[in-house]
Amino acid sequence: MLVRILGCGSAMPSLRHNTSSQLVDVRGKLFLVDCGEGVQVELRRRRLHLGSINHIFITHLHGDHCLGLVGLVSTLNLLDRTAPLHVYAPAGLEAVLRLQLQTFCSGTTYEIICHEVDTTQEAVIYEDRSMTVTTLPLDHRKPCCGYLFREKAGLPHIRREAIDAYEIPYSQVNNIKAGNDWVTPDGEIIPWQRLTRPAEPAKSYAYCSDTAFLPSLIGRVRDIDVLYHEATYTDDKIANAIKYKHSTARQAATIAREANVGRLIIGHFSHSCEEQTLLQQAREVFENTDLADEKLEVRI
Amino acid sequence: MLVRILGCGSAMPSLRHNTSSQLVDVRGKLFLVDCGEGVQVELRRRRLHLGSINHIFITHLHGDHCLGLVGLVSTLNLLDRTAPLHVYAPAGLEAVLRLQLQTFCSGTTYEIICHEVDTTQEAVIYEDRSMTVTTLPLDHRKPCCGYLFREKAGLPHIRREAIDAYEIPYSQVNNIKAGNDWVTPDGEIIPWQRLTRPAEPAKSYAYCSDTAFLPSLIGRVRDIDVLYHEATYTDDKIANAIKYKHSTARQAATIAREANVGRLIIGHFSHSCEEQTLLQQAREVFENTDLADEKLEVRI
Repeated sequence: MLVRILGCGSAMPSLRHNTSSQLVDVRGKLFLVDCGEGVQVELRRRRLHLGSINHIFITHLHGDHCLGLVGLVSTLNLLDRTAPLHVYAPAGLEAVLRLQLQTFCSGTTYEIICHEVDTTQEAVIYEDRSMTVTTLPLDHRKPCCGYLFREKAGLPHIRREAIDAYEIPYSQVNNIKAGNDWVTPDGEIIPWQRLTRPAEPAKSYAYCSDTAFLPSLIGRVRDIDVLYHEATYTDDKIANAIKYKHSTARQAATIAREANVGRLIIGHFSHSCEEQTLLQQAREVFENTDLADEKLEVRI
Repeated sequence: MLVRILGCGSAMPSLRHNTSSQLVDVRGKLFLVDCGEGVQVELRRRRLHLGSINHIFITHLHGDHCLGLVGLVSTLNLLDRTAPLHVYAPAGLEAVLRLQLQTFCSGTTYEIICHEVDTTQEAVIYEDRSMTVTTLPLDHRKPCCGYLFREKAGLPHIRREAIDAYEIPYSQVNNIKAGNDWVTPDGEIIPWQRLTRPAEPAKSYAYCSDTAFLPSLIGRVRDIDVLYHEATYTDDKIANAIKYKHSTARQAATIAREANVGRLIIGHFSHSCEEQTLLQQAREVFENTDLADEKLEVRI
């Protein structure tokens, strides 16, 4: 997995940060998560191929998380896209997106399939052969959910030299990878583990923005490899965090520590907070924390 | 007057150009004309004060001319604006803007007053003590109009030394500036022209994008100081110009020459055309032509 931060500011775009957006690459499949204004230009700046995005996940209907959507959708139209585009979002997005397209474009060359997500439920909303995407209920001023990207456990790899040594026919390889032992013509049983190397561990990544401090999230992101958690405020602004249903960096780090995640990336910085202070306050709780940034690429 | 180009690309934003947007400064009053995606960031990049914009003029409802509006409006809200904001646009914009604000914001701190413009009429839609804004009907795939900014003729300036010489009381200055002669206590008539210097000439600027070649525009922009005219295509792509109701650079220059304008700025460049070729083809018809660019500031 590779997570590219396209924007990690809060509220409004600035010269320092775009508003929220990320591109999650799972074995070559590209998933856009949130879509702040200007995301299409950021994708071009990074030389990422707009046309390869087939799935867009929106966490909630605040402008800083979705105002770039109509521009991206409109540009894909001008680029003569034909593949359907799937948009997952809380109730209400489809109506405004359709009205915008009707007003500003004249039909699209491709189908837009909107999937309304229930932000109150933890549910698998996307699944393919190798991975799932699960909603993570969050606590914000608007209905809001995070998204957990989880690879499925892969099959073990066959050990070429063992196969050769036992002269196992190619037709039996998938049986062995699936966990069946091999019986030689002499009746000897060769355990499948001796014929294989373990699969790479299945990777997992969760994007959680925006939310108040939410202990129920801990169980839902337990032991994942990387957690992106919003950290809008420093400790001294906890009253704002409570008022606006955001988290402090320390709260984000508490979720990460309690959930035993591998690494924490914090983002959605308030313009009123020093980023180095946010980082320091998070690291006091959870050492393996880094600041999100438009130059950051997180390889998992 | 000072015109700042904020975006002069066509169709979709690129690394080279933003989509259409300009800031017209008339004696310190700021008017935004069109509002492509990302305009709020471009305003910040140029260190222009978002809060000073009170009037926004939209030419037509294609995304590359208005997708930045909701983001700008939303940011002004986050900045706690209180002054009303006037938005002039063809029918249809208000409904989509209101739905976007309702969906993505939770009310605004200031009033947004939408003025529906009739794109088929040449009409004064804004007037204050020193200037007017007039719609210019254009010919495009959607209802579309340009905007003509025209200063009102100012009063002449009083000649200090003449006033002193004739011992004219201060209370008479406005009478003289308004064109009344001065009669000395001896009965001598001093023509007002001898007591004044002429006012600065009233400046004028027209923004015309997007449009097919439109000879009826010539009379409407006759003798203005600066014309911005779209020039989407080079000569070899005239079939596209006709099909999509755009102009070639040569056509834009023909309008400028026939209307006897002072200077022509061309913009709204297609990604498929070389800008230097556009410039050359325009200059063959009208020498005083320049290419628009996000670094260009046109002082009139």
